[in-house]
Amino acid sequence: MGTEHIVRSFAQELQRLSNLVTQMGGVAEAQVEAAVKAVTRRDVGLASQVMQADARLDAYERDIDAEAVRLLALRQPMAQDLREIVSALKVSADLERIGDYAANIAKRSLALAQVPVVRPAAGIPRMGRLVETILKEVLDAYIERDVDKAIAAWERDEELDDLYTSLFREVLTYMMEDPRNITPCTHLLFMAKNLERIGDHATNIAEIIHFLVVGTPLTVLRPKNDGSSFAVVSPAAPDIDLPLPPDDDAGPADAG
Amino acid sequence: MGTEHIVRSFAQELQRLSNLVTQMGGVAEAQVEAAVKAVTRRDVGLASQVMQADARLDAYERDIDAEAVRLLALRQPMAQDLREIVSALKVSADLERIGDYAANIAKRSLALAQVPVVRPAAGIPRMGRLVETILKEVLDAYIERDVDKAIAAWERDEELDDLYTSLFREVLTYMMEDPRNITPCTHLLFMAKNLERIGDHATNIAEIIHFLVVGTPLTVLRPKNDGSSFAVVSPAAPDIDLPLPPDDDAGPADAG
Repeated sequence: MGTEHIVRSFAQELQRLSNLVTQMGGVAEAQVEAAVKAVTRRDVGLASQVMQADARLDAYERDIDAEAVRLLALRQPMAQDLREIVSALKVSADLERIGDYAANIAKRSLALAQVPVVRPAAGIPRMGRLVETILKEVLDAYIERDVDKAIAAWERDEELDDLYTSLFREVLTYMMEDPRNITPCTHLLFMAKNLERIGDHATNIAEIIHFLVVGTPLTVLRPKNDGSSFAVVSPAAPDIDLPLPPDDDAGPADAG
Repeated sequence: MGTEHIVRSFAQELQRLSNLVTQMGGVAEAQVEAAVKAVTRRDVGLASQVMQADARLDAYERDIDAEAVRLLALRQPMAQDLREIVSALKVSADLERIGDYAANIAKRSLALAQVPVVRPAAGIPRMGRLVETILKEVLDAYIERDVDKAIAAWERDEELDDLYTSLFREVLTYMMEDPRNITPCTHLLFMAKNLERIGDHATNIAEIIHFLVVGTPLTVLRPKNDGSSFAVVSPAAPDIDLPLPPDDDAGPADAG
């Protein structure tokens, strides 16, 4: 009975850890949504809220790390329990990064709000909606320990890469039309890149869910369609070719 | 004696795990160096080597994760030993990201090599040298478990942010001079950002070393000087002002 008691309370502790991660995921989701809103509405107040609220995600990560280390030390878990704790450590790190990208989008929106609206800015909410969907699906998959849902979200990151690549082309051509577009468009490029990176961290979380539930890493590499790193756009030729070398082996975690 | 044997061999296993991380760090360092070389020498062959070699870092991370989880399960470590294993998990994740950024720099160098050299490209090797120094110091600090050395490297990230911000300004003004500069300069902006992000991951590792040795997180936030997210550069006014709001609370992990 003593044992049973310990087992039950360890299960409760694991549940609490998992709930912390879920809460942190909710905050990260809200941060991304608010950051995109700050851009589209040119809402400087909302932008600074997002920048300030980022500290909450850092605090969540510290709490989750501390709790995970405590459970590892006191409970000396095995198998599934151990994977639960290691996954909490990893997912919180990805969520913290997602928060950083959201904060940076908010930060850049302050610069954008100082200049007239540039047309390609419309691409940000479009990417934002898709990122928010993918992130939401991944976090649902984490709560439900649903590998299929995680993989489905993981695969949708490809759409996001396509959106990013086409926005990248559009922004570049727009910069060439008028030098006054260059500064705002540069911020748009980084915002779009931040959204694309948020998608990559969402796919990381999907991979962690696979490890958590199945016990093995998800090794298959989703073909990475971010052609923007190869983009050569010339003012002379508005038609853009993206020469892709055969060995484009940059995986989901492609960085730039 | 049996106990002594077990203790000794666990120490050996921890040493092996730490050696794996050190080896991975060496590969990451070499990748960053080669990527910057590929840019400065416009060496397409070297660039594709870097892109291909990135898979090695992914493999290292998988091995380190698997070994760490195995040790957690079999050895049920406490205190310092536990922190050793958790730190290995975290450092390997940062090194994997550093590799992704290096691979992306290499990838972008392919696009740069297709067009004439643009002047601000000289800023990349300058940033590269500093990043390589910081990364080397952090990895030495990890090997020597030297907190002071880790904090010293952590503080140097500020210089890197300054270099990045000034390069960012230079590149933007250069883009405005001639639309033909826009595409190559865009790749330069992302390369510079990737180097700045590599510096951020190096500071993350410095923070992990503090946790590993001291047992508490390094909570003090180094003031973040990346003003580029606020940059408003106008073709009319070549003098650039970077309006920084009082609440620039983006920490070392500032994302964009």
